Amino acid sequence: MGKPRIEQDLIQLIERAFRSSQSPALTLSLGDDAALWRRSRNKDTILTCDWFLEGTHFLRQKHPPDAIGWKCLARAVSDIAAMGGKPACFLLSLALPEELTGKWLVGFLRGLRRASRATACALAGGDTTRNERVLVSATVLGEVSPGQAVLRSGARPGDRLYASGTLGEAELGLAELRRLQTIPRAPNAALGKHLYPQPRLALGQWLAHNRLASAMMDLSDGLSTDLPRLCAASRVGATIASSSLPLSSRTDRTRALDLALHGGDDYELLFTVSPRKASLLPSHFRGVKLTRIGKITRQQKILLEDSTGSTTLLRPGGWDPFRAS
Amino acid sequence: MGKPRIEQDLIQLIERAFRSSQSPALTLSLGDDAALWRRSRNKDTILTCDWFLEGTHFLRQKHPPDAIGWKCLARAVSDIAAMGGKPACFLLSLALPEELTGKWLVGFLRGLRRASRATACALAGGDTTRNERVLVSATVLGEVSPGQAVLRSGARPGDRLYASGTLGEAELGLAELRRLQTIPRAPNAALGKHLYPQPRLALGQWLAHNRLASAMMDLSDGLSTDLPRLCAASRVGATIASSSLPLSSRTDRTRALDLALHGGDDYELLFTVSPRKASLLPSHFRGVKLTRIGKITRQQKILLEDSTGSTTLLRPGGWDPFRAS
Repeated sequence: MGKPRIEQDLIQLIERAFRSSQSPALTLSLGDDAALWRRSRNKDTILTCDWFLEGTHFLRQKHPPDAIGWKCLARAVSDIAAMGGKPACFLLSLALPEELTGKWLVGFLRGLRRASRATACALAGGDTTRNERVLVSATVLGEVSPGQAVLRSGARPGDRLYASGTLGEAELGLAELRRLQTIPRAPNAALGKHLYPQPRLALGQWLAHNRLASAMMDLSDGLSTDLPRLCAASRVGATIASSSLPLSSRTDRTRALDLALHGGDDYELLFTVSPRKASLLPSHFRGVKLTRIGKITRQQKILLEDSTGSTTLLRPGGWDPFRAS
Repeated sequence: MGKPRIEQDLIQLIERAFRSSQSPALTLSLGDDAALWRRSRNKDTILTCDWFLEGTHFLRQKHPPDAIGWKCLARAVSDIAAMGGKPACFLLSLALPEELTGKWLVGFLRGLRRASRATACALAGGDTTRNERVLVSATVLGEVSPGQAVLRSGARPGDRLYASGTLGEAELGLAELRRLQTIPRAPNAALGKHLYPQPRLALGQWLAHNRLASAMMDLSDGLSTDLPRLCAASRVGATIASSSLPLSSRTDRTRALDLALHGGDDYELLFTVSPRKASLLPSHFRGVKLTRIGKITRQQKILLEDSTGSTTLLRPGGWDPFRAS
């Protein structure tokens, strides 16, 4: 058996190993933003977990402990938003060096508690141990009414493709963070978005409740990496119009376009809406811009259309831990 | 603020940071084997997670991948057993080096799947990433009827203290593993217990269902470390009779006693029973020996009584990641 080269291969290998032993109560498990566990007739439980590792996902010398605490929870909660669910509680697996169990830990917990309150997601438990590098894994449980969860697999040819907010700003914020010697008290929008991403919970719930989105996921690894995942789950393709992408205005257009296509960590929602329902979609939802960025196609290719109308294949350029080598 | 020195301090620090923001639906959270989440009137959900880290909890050069897969799930499921619950599903957070994504991963998944089937705990989802060392965090969800979960906090002075199985064998198995060049096809009981611990699910559920145990926890870090945790949660003390401990017969008595008191990784159940109910307890439950090892006392000390009747304070000598320095 060959070695899997990218994260998606690894997930498929795990999925195959367990395929025959799955429980019927798990209506959806591997391969979406989160798993769905049918517990009662009134509610489905949404389950998700996310690694947040020093050196891989954050830099101890650069990222304030407060931001590490916020972000380790916010990015897992974003998977609940991407299903249209409501967070309920989380478990924290934390490993850290002894020298960080004082002031650093207090800062980390302050950020974590702020994220916990902002997303109404209570700490339920966890496990702690010692390690020379900081390791975090956050498991979040959420709830959604049965049948309302928005999966990655529901997109149909002809559906319109939307993104919330601005794309590429978090990656711009990371570049800024690497340059800075000290973090300003009031970081600009890009740096703020990188350090303290806001999971789009209200938007996700609204889209799910009103059955507006046919498919949805959150953008964590960059549009060019995440969109193929949504398309693969739905067995469709997509064409993106480069001129329509909601770019950052904080850099030149060429770089902004590159960041919007390949930059990670935005935690915006990517979703599809059938033409029949598209008119119900406002231009903004509670201050967050909603932009039509393309369409879903029958042909299973991801194409980028430039302003002249000519198209090129969009290759995944986002972040993949197993491609980064 | 001083730095916490042991794991318990760290847990208390986290608990304090979150105390005011807890949800009323979380009937019990930090400080027990697992958290309880009241989802409906019919069932409570039990939540627990456990680190399993290369170098800390296992050695890549010594532990077969199959045993690592088995044990990372079995030890988390043991926390469900310790509440008297039934496992439902789990999430796997896995980080590993690229060179282990072939044969090693197949072996790991084989052991994990066996544990998943043996405990009726289905894989629900997870997260994978790359790391130079193998990191595993397993989150297990279980179920228990409301009011039936057996907590650490229910022990009362006069209650009798019991342990399942034999104590100290897993630590003996670890010593053997360190000596061996190759793992035998049919490991002896001690090595087998270290590599493939069996969570005491049926016993835990039976004790909970029949309301026999007033308090319960699983022995993961050694009796001398875990018993004080049960006693602290119950605000009681305990006296253990050294002559009554279910020792391993695979080594001399002095070493066997030391291992029974301080050896970790047994995943046996430690539980208390009121004198009124003690006669209902069999000597064996489905082949697993149940041994009365002492009693719960009002005086909040942990004492060890020798065969002459004289007592000494029992100091924690088990495994604590923050004490190991």
